[in-house]
Amino acid sequence: VRQSIDLNADMGEGYGAWPMGNDAALMKVISSANIACGFHAGDPTVMAKTMDLALRTGVALGAHPGFADLQGFGRRRMQLSASEITALIQYQLGAASAIAQGLGAKLDHFKLHGALSNMAAESDELARACFQAALAVQPDIRLVIMPQTAMEAAAHALDASCLNEVFADRSYDEAGRLMDRSLPGAVLHDPTTAAVRIENMLRDGCIISHSGKKIAARIDTVCVHGDSESAVQLAQCLRERLQKAGIVITRSHL
Amino acid sequence: VRQSIDLNADMGEGYGAWPMGNDAALMKVISSANIACGFHAGDPTVMAKTMDLALRTGVALGAHPGFADLQGFGRRRMQLSASEITALIQYQLGAASAIAQGLGAKLDHFKLHGALSNMAAESDELARACFQAALAVQPDIRLVIMPQTAMEAAAHALDASCLNEVFADRSYDEAGRLMDRSLPGAVLHDPTTAAVRIENMLRDGCIISHSGKKIAARIDTVCVHGDSESAVQLAQCLRERLQKAGIVITRSHL
Amino acid sequence: VRQSIDLNADMGEGYGAWPMGNDAALMKVISSANIACGFHAGDPTVMAKTMDLALRTGVALGAHPGFADLQGFGRRRMQLSASEITALIQYQLGAASAIAQGLGAKLDHFKLHGALSNMAAESDELARACFQAALAVQPDIRLVIMPQTAMEAAAHALDASCLNEVFADRSYDEAGRLMDRSLPGAVLHDPTTAAVRIENMLRDGCIISHSGKKIAARIDTVCVHGDSESAVQLAQCLRERLQKAGIVITRSHL
Amino acid sequence: VRQSIDLNADMGEGYGAWPMGNDAALMKVISSANIACGFHAGDPTVMAKTMDLALRTGVALGAHPGFADLQGFGRRRMQLSASEITALIQYQLGAASAIAQGLGAKLDHFKLHGALSNMAAESDELARACFQAALAVQPDIRLVIMPQTAMEAAAHALDASCLNEVFADRSYDEAGRLMDRSLPGAVLHDPTTAAVRIENMLRDGCIISHSGKKIAARIDTVCVHGDSESAVQLAQCLRERLQKAGIVITRSHL
Repeated sequence: VRQSIDLNADMGEGYGAWPMGNDAALMKVISSANIACGFHAGDPTVMAKTMDLALRTGVALGAHPGFADLQGFGRRRMQLSASEITALIQYQLGAASAIAQGLGAKLDHFKLHGALSNMAAESDELARACFQAALAVQPDIRLVIMPQTAMEAAAHALDASCLNEVFADRSYDEAGRLMDRSLPGAVLHDPTTAAVRIENMLRDGCIISHSGKKIAARIDTVCVHGDSESAVQLAQCLRERLQKAGIVITRSHL
Repeated sequence: VRQSIDLNADMGEGYGAWPMGNDAALMKVISSANIACGFHAGDPTVMAKTMDLALRTGVALGAHPGFADLQGFGRRRMQLSASEITALIQYQLGAASAIAQGLGAKLDHFKLHGALSNMAAESDELARACFQAALAVQPDIRLVIMPQTAMEAAAHALDASCLNEVFADRSYDEAGRLMDRSLPGAVLHDPTTAAVRIENMLRDGCIISHSGKKIAARIDTVCVHGDSESAVQLAQCLRERLQKAGIVITRSHL
Repeated sequence: VRQSIDLNADMGEGYGAWPMGNDAALMKVISSANIACGFHAGDPTVMAKTMDLALRTGVALGAHPGFADLQGFGRRRMQLSASEITALIQYQLGAASAIAQGLGAKLDHFKLHGALSNMAAESDELARACFQAALAVQPDIRLVIMPQTAMEAAAHALDASCLNEVFADRSYDEAGRLMDRSLPGAVLHDPTTAAVRIENMLRDGCIISHSGKKIAARIDTVCVHGDSESAVQLAQCLRERLQKAGIVITRSHL
Repeated sequence: VRQSIDLNADMGEGYGAWPMGNDAALMKVISSANIACGFHAGDPTVMAKTMDLALRTGVALGAHPGFADLQGFGRRRMQLSASEITALIQYQLGAASAIAQGLGAKLDHFKLHGALSNMAAESDELARACFQAALAVQPDIRLVIMPQTAMEAAAHALDASCLNEVFADRSYDEAGRLMDRSLPGAVLHDPTTAAVRIENMLRDGCIISHSGKKIAARIDTVCVHGDSESAVQLAQCLRERLQKAGIVITRSHL
């Protein structure tokens, strides 16, 4: 029986004078923070402040690199060569790692952002380029991956430590993959519905599809969002429900 | 008697489709490359290519961070708080360090760029903020400093490994500091004149001012430029002259 | 007796995925919108959406150019040459003008942002460079200026149409200039206090200093802010109070 | 018989401290300059200097907008909505137009850059969005288009003034479209070969494919490059050959 789970969220997604989301509120809910690395969001100062907040709250730090696309928030697909990807990843991971080190801390995990993540879920080659680049910089970093995708295959081929992730507010298809956002029911808005579904997944040790099908899968971390008030509420609701079920919210230790 | 000297140059100052300087030619002349870190010049791909070139030529790698000012090439002064400076420095140093690590290498030195360097030469506080930030990330990194400036005081206060630098194409005043570029004679254009002067400085173990005054100073590294054909020629001329004088061009070991 | 006044506010200060302020609420309060032009805030899409919102609300459009400093929100001082300033201003003004034209509208006014504004208030030369650049692109554009500053002198020397501006939430010294933000009482937080003071200024046709001194000055427009809930409340309070005093809030016609 | 032709080239493709190409040499060869507008290359200062150079040489000015992708030089494809495209185009066109106006000049033509151009050649919808946006800002601007592509259809549907363009150093397929760069013979490197082919096209009033097939087409302007020494030589060779054939190099007048 599952006794603990990690809750992760994207953090430090402000830039300069622009804040984004309610990092302070969400930091009390989660156990792992994915820190934007300055290319799609975040700047060095935002990164340092966010990491400092996480450390004071006992939240684990992860690098969350994306495409160099501030205006598009890293959500626009871009075609890069393997060597460009390697440099893109190592640059951002190294930057985040050094700021963490400046605060006396170390990065725990690595999670791709936005279009880069979506593309890596589809392409073994891209996933492998991203993960190999990260592992060359920090061999013990844990890769947050989406089960049943190219990410999983690439991470396994590299024999890397992985954190299998599900999304609290998204539905899954019968292959255990995220349903396209455009499909009805793909995004869950009701906190309780979302929380119950995650609780069931953790209890049963499988991804439960929108149709009810169970796909066996290890689940190590649940992604919650904090970009809106309702997102924070969903996260808080999930945390409370899991705690009532006797599941401790804590950073995962493999 | 001086038996070896380090020659350093700013490298990887292209960005995207824009090259700058003749890195390939200059890499054969120098022993240490200061790699632009993406804020005033350089992008992750340029950084990786430049480091790869340096490593294949046996040239030591250093981080060369500057202000976030691509359009101004880091030459415009900006007022930042101490915590902003810390994050700015650690971000760039970490990024460079990770790309080096991806190539199986490690950074050897740290040199400030442009307006950030000029301001740190004037301000103990700024110099200290920059150096402390760097040392927190890599305690054994060597700080390239201008003797007789606030950089020297800050580096000594931090008990850091330093590389004292003189510029091959610049004249010094009687305090042993760089003459302002606007003054007559401040910039040397003739390769032989410049080479002879550096040779004399190394032989005598002192900075020799434009007026001929000798200011005792350890000299560890000589900065040459590569942004124009004539700059590369000056660097080559200097290298040849020093070698004829029996001085080996090599990365310095403290 | 004063029968109408213009209320202006900075608008369209989001960037990409980052909103800023409550433009929708504030647009109902003001009569003139200063549109950020993409260098310190705003991007082409944000500009078009904000202008569209303004036009549908009957709010006049103005260009609000700043330094090219997204991370610093245009609040960091930068030293530029006169020709750089000319190009900086014309680029942003032209961009804003074209987007307005695409919506069937025309720019009404021109207001400098942030550090560029502060510096132009201090330097005749800079103010003149900015204004001359703007007038060369649109000779009938109205320049929003701070009375008693270098802006006023420069605008008069260029024989330009001006809108004299006071700030609703700021105090003035006995020379009729903004008190430094760091001084006690320099920033007004209470909506009623601010509104009463502006009402008195408009009634008396003069700037009223923090100490109570009256400095005769034409006042054409009052700047309000919208970056926080309390800022919007102050603006709404001011609007209501002025309307009760029989002063119509309307874009100014010279 | 053809008596005159326009030669156009991309100009002002430097950024900040980075020059690109030999604008000064090429300006003496061409009759129309396509000015980069700051998103993929060019900054306000570079734009103003380049336009000033063009005007002093009697070369016509055109706006050359691209995607907001400095690092990728506008060569990376990005998916934007129609309203994003409209704002992107109008922003850049307006900026260029204002800088031209500041120099007492007016834009003559409009040519899409890089990936934006390639995508507009394939998509009626995108071409139409770009052209409609430009015409809303300057109804009399002339659209540089590639014959036999979606650009041509869109421009005709909008009843716009067009300049049909061929590329001096590229080969065409039997449909009269550019051969893919990856195909053998797609890029011409020999100046004389290129010049002869263009001369034949102008004489016969048709695009001549790599295989020798003639596709009837009006040709208004020939694009030459200036990014390398050999590109400038090709342009000079073409100019001389056309002049010997009695064809005047001049900006086109419809």
